[in-house]
Amino acid sequence: MGAPPPGSTDAPPRDAAPLVRPAARTVPPSTVARLPGYLRALAEVEAQGVRTASSDALADVAGVSPAQLRKDLSFLGSHGTRGVGYDVAHLRGQIGVVLGLTRQRPVVIVGLGNLGHALANYPGFTERGFVVVGLVDADPHVVGTQVAGLRVEPAERLADVVREGGATMAVITVPAGAAQDVCDRLVAAGVRGILNFAPRALQVPDGVDVRSVDLGSELQILAFHDQARSMS
Amino acid sequence: MGAPPPGSTDAPPRDAAPLVRPAARTVPPSTVARLPGYLRALAEVEAQGVRTASSDALADVAGVSPAQLRKDLSFLGSHGTRGVGYDVAHLRGQIGVVLGLTRQRPVVIVGLGNLGHALANYPGFTERGFVVVGLVDADPHVVGTQVAGLRVEPAERLADVVREGGATMAVITVPAGAAQDVCDRLVAAGVRGILNFAPRALQVPDGVDVRSVDLGSELQILAFHDQARSMS
Repeated sequence: MGAPPPGSTDAPPRDAAPLVRPAARTVPPSTVARLPGYLRALAEVEAQGVRTASSDALADVAGVSPAQLRKDLSFLGSHGTRGVGYDVAHLRGQIGVVLGLTRQRPVVIVGLGNLGHALANYPGFTERGFVVVGLVDADPHVVGTQVAGLRVEPAERLADVVREGGATMAVITVPAGAAQDVCDRLVAAGVRGILNFAPRALQVPDGVDVRSVDLGSELQILAFHDQARSMS
Repeated sequence: MGAPPPGSTDAPPRDAAPLVRPAARTVPPSTVARLPGYLRALAEVEAQGVRTASSDALADVAGVSPAQLRKDLSFLGSHGTRGVGYDVAHLRGQIGVVLGLTRQRPVVIVGLGNLGHALANYPGFTERGFVVVGLVDADPHVVGTQVAGLRVEPAERLADVVREGGATMAVITVPAGAAQDVCDRLVAAGVRGILNFAPRALQVPDGVDVRSVDLGSELQILAFHDQARSMS
């Protein structure tokens, strides 16, 4: 463990020991993708009053193998203490620093249909370090309504909403046919990270990240296995 | 191309040539995960009136490399015709058969908060081969309400709802603390494929598949890259 101060287990993670962020390029993408799960697992055991956890215990809660967890955390310079384990609060703070969650990150949602509406009200975003600062929709019946305490702005104000909110991240929940245009306009306005729910592959320039969540695809992948079982 | 009949491009995919499903074990999981994207790309080009598409064109719409697409489709026995490409309708039908989408598959949703409510009304499920046959919630204020034309049933009726709907797939949109219990009860009722939106790793027995979509994690992974850029 990278020298947690004596009092760190009592302090909230963001106030914990000064933490050094490893160079982003030293953390493999597959490890980055698992860090939120570790953060979740740490919050879970911390809520149960646990202050020090073994890699076996943490891995069990996170749903990975202990070897995987130890390897991933070693990229962060966290190795735990033999026979004691990881300091839960310190490790939580450390992963938060690595993920850039030391401040609330502003996010804009474009598309206030059922899904966009649900995401605007999703407590899991707030709890995980994000704040929705702007909502945009193209439908004149939706523009001007209040969702999650924010006024829905018209499509032509998209760039203003992004800039006014200081957002570099956005969520796209528009129909597939509109997604690329919305994406292009978000990128032009300065957005660099996009969570895309439209069932359409988006083209973005270098330096912009897209993560796509296609809910229909997820069910189709499950259907494959379901069918495979029923035929075997 | 595996001998499409002359008229197959005019027929809807499900009525196309008799199609043989390859043994599930011959299709690698990473390929299975990309098949829904190919299905989406095929529907997209078909809607534009395209009947035959090159691997380059399809790969571009699907957002993968042409080599990847050709390799994935070769596991299905589809190799296209040199200089002509793939028969769009036939390939669509073939992937549908592989994914088990030749009939609408019934799905139960447990947890009718904002997200469950949005998913119950999500057109992307219906369009992609699924029909929501049952809704369950533990909140007495929600039980008995109508969502997407269905009555929300109480938690104690979960197994009945699964059996009455003939569902072997379910979506979990309950709070993290309730997710494992709901999962256990779904599995006991015969569910074999679970799409989990609760931010909690679920334990399931062999023969049950879970795909987890953790929306907070997706944003956190984007935040890592966003922060990495701003620091470089």
